[in-house]
Amino acid sequence: MPKFSSRGLNMPESPIRKLAPYAVKVKEKGLHVYHLNIGQPDIKSPQTAIDVLKNIDLDIFAYTPSEGNFDYKETLKEYYHSLGFEDLTRDNFIITNGGSEALSFTLSCLCDNEDEIIVPEPFYANYYSFAESIGVTIVPIVSTIDTGFSLPDIEKFEELITSKTRAILITNPSNPTGYLYSKEELQKLADIAVKHDIFLISDEVYREYVYDGLPFHSVLEFPELKENVIVIDSESKRYSLCGIRCGFLVSRNKKFLEIALKFAQARLSPSLIGQIIANAAHKQPISYIENVKKEYSERRDLLVKLLNEIPGVVCPKPKGSFYCTVELPVENAEDFCLWMLKDFEYENGTVMLTPAQGFYSNQEHGKRQVRLAYVINKDDITQSIKIIKKGLEKYNTLQ
Amino acid sequence: MPKFSSRGLNMPESPIRKLAPYAVKVKEKGLHVYHLNIGQPDIKSPQTAIDVLKNIDLDIFAYTPSEGNFDYKETLKEYYHSLGFEDLTRDNFIITNGGSEALSFTLSCLCDNEDEIIVPEPFYANYYSFAESIGVTIVPIVSTIDTGFSLPDIEKFEELITSKTRAILITNPSNPTGYLYSKEELQKLADIAVKHDIFLISDEVYREYVYDGLPFHSVLEFPELKENVIVIDSESKRYSLCGIRCGFLVSRNKKFLEIALKFAQARLSPSLIGQIIANAAHKQPISYIENVKKEYSERRDLLVKLLNEIPGVVCPKPKGSFYCTVELPVENAEDFCLWMLKDFEYENGTVMLTPAQGFYSNQEHGKRQVRLAYVINKDDITQSIKIIKKGLEKYNTLQ
Ligand SMILES: Cc1ncc(COP(=O)(O)O)c(C=O)c1O
Ligand SMILES: Cc1ncc(COP(=O)(O)O)c(C=O)c1O
Repeated sequence: MPKFSSRGLNMPESPIRKLAPYAVKVKEKGLHVYHLNIGQPDIKSPQTAIDVLKNIDLDIFAYTPSEGNFDYKETLKEYYHSLGFEDLTRDNFIITNGGSEALSFTLSCLCDNEDEIIVPEPFYANYYSFAESIGVTIVPIVSTIDTGFSLPDIEKFEELITSKTRAILITNPSNPTGYLYSKEELQKLADIAVKHDIFLISDEVYREYVYDGLPFHSVLEFPELKENVIVIDSESKRYSLCGIRCGFLVSRNKKFLEIALKFAQARLSPSLIGQIIANAAHKQPISYIENVKKEYSERRDLLVKLLNEIPGVVCPKPKGSFYCTVELPVENAEDFCLWMLKDFEYENGTVMLTPAQGFYSNQEHGKRQVRLAYVINKDDITQSIKIIKKGLEKYNTLQ
Repeated sequence: MPKFSSRGLNMPESPIRKLAPYAVKVKEKGLHVYHLNIGQPDIKSPQTAIDVLKNIDLDIFAYTPSEGNFDYKETLKEYYHSLGFEDLTRDNFIITNGGSEALSFTLSCLCDNEDEIIVPEPFYANYYSFAESIGVTIVPIVSTIDTGFSLPDIEKFEELITSKTRAILITNPSNPTGYLYSKEELQKLADIAVKHDIFLISDEVYREYVYDGLPFHSVLEFPELKENVIVIDSESKRYSLCGIRCGFLVSRNKKFLEIALKFAQARLSPSLIGQIIANAAHKQPISYIENVKKEYSERRDLLVKLLNEIPGVVCPKPKGSFYCTVELPVENAEDFCLWMLKDFEYENGTVMLTPAQGFYSNQEHGKRQVRLAYVINKDDITQSIKIIKKGLEKYNTLQ
């Protein structure tokens, strides 16, 4: 048998990999699975995006420029102007195959083998995969459920910075916790980035979904970060367009954009059709986002209320994105998630959850936690939480 | 200024990067640029692919499975059965964002930092970029224009194999030379791969475009290579669908597929719409490919004949793909290409060519060569070669 790379062998599996086959079996038995485990919204894509497909009048589906189409970049520029960043031009954007590719490009531009990126944990599990695939080390900085996942003190960050540190990477608002960074926290991070002249990378793909009338603050707001900021963005969650694979990089650092462009050129082109659809999505009425936000906000209220009513469950109220990370009254959340699929049903259904271990580098930290995504409707949320409650009761009598 | 990675700084630029701004200026002057420099066909995409867009009836453009859609994989299975590989099932395929991503995944699965891949040169320039981006070394094995780019002796390969060699990577038929591997040559490569238990990676994205009634042989034909073969494939060139970003990996090695799947999961999903379009393209009548092939074949005949009529030009007749690599009677082909854009015009137009240096690791080897892609119509080919001829005459009086 020929050899494989250790980067390949060590690549983490998706956190739900072990569970997925059991979910299939549940469905084969004719039972319903409530999917609280994935970040695939059930929200309709904007009508403008759906309609544009019918009007594409092309004879040849050709490569686009590696950095993205003129029109779409023009639209993004306007969108960012509307966010208040009026200095940005088309040249500050590079279009990618989802935010995923934007993340890969960014790490590759900044880090060589064994370089380090500091990431507050729990964090989006694929950061670990992107880092592993190019030999970069993720240095976690722990935030805990009892403080609602707020950032540790600035000194804790500074303790972690070494000559190999290339960036701090945050997700704002967060997947998996729904945590929203305050302006003061961002200012602290900005100060560190400037002081040590490293990058602050902010993954803002959930920017639109912030609740309770709270303001969202982007790292682009800090003028002192001009050369030190990279924003990861994507249309996947904003417009429920996950399958079109359209994301992008935003930066004011010309050298960074120049290097990222070389990675973009190597893979030739982002998706032509994806860009056309995303461009059309930006032309929908602003009410689209408002309505989706209202829906997520109501779901969150319901989910958090019902979860906290279950004895022993701890669910901090997330301020943004559409996830929450929850502590369950069990020793091993992964085992519980598996059991729910293998051995439990209630009123002809069961629930699929994501064990939170995969979001921590020290897996002990997430051992009693799960992540839930409120991407199903309110009736289904109510029923899911009922099933979780009944499941916990039964599971704990068996231990 | 924060630091960048050396992999980023060292990433090669696209071979036409220096020329591109001059081409823009030529167009601004109102002159025509004949683009013989890029692999973007002018051929119409199949009608079935164009029509399917109008009939997509989806409310949500959702992620697809990371390994690709059931339907599209079923279609690919049937397509590969029609090529004679009837043992393949859906599970032998992983769908990627173009052949480009299939190449990245493959190198990442096989190679750690400083591992080696042997590649006959001249080779597709982006192999170098994909390798550089993960710290992999490309070990070139030189083929030369005077033998029509045929493979060197098997011993030459064996001399290059070290404990760090993970694979031999070939392009069949080749970009940039149009070279087509014979069954005997492939058998030799298969023998080496088996003997040293390394992978043979074959990039067969131009498989359909082989001329003069010659047979195309895939590395999948060799049963002894069962665990040692990876095929890179793409819909970009087959169906003139470059912009949909749809390619894939084919292998019989389960462990390889399992590891590649982890990379696929990290980036979540290939393009939903790309897969729908590609799936539809495979339903077009077989006459589509026959007609395109006839067209390319006639263009090749014309191009090669006209080029070889120019004094001092050497153009081996390519047997496949839609490129040829040509030696010009100049000292420095890059300088000539630049001059053609900056300082020359004939009958209100000029020609853009790709300097071949970027296709060689030892750039001296390609210094007098250019690559041409016959992706423009016959009248334009005739006019382009006339312009090249006039250009060479003038250029050489100036030296
Ligand atoms: C925090 C975060 N960043 C990036 C992504 C990547 O999404 P995409 O590649 O679809 O843009 C996701 C997807 O779930 C995410 O949660
Ligand atoms: C030899 C070869 N392999 C792979 C590719 C990648 O093409 P794509 O990513 O569009 O499938 C190309 C494109 O020109 C090519 O010439």
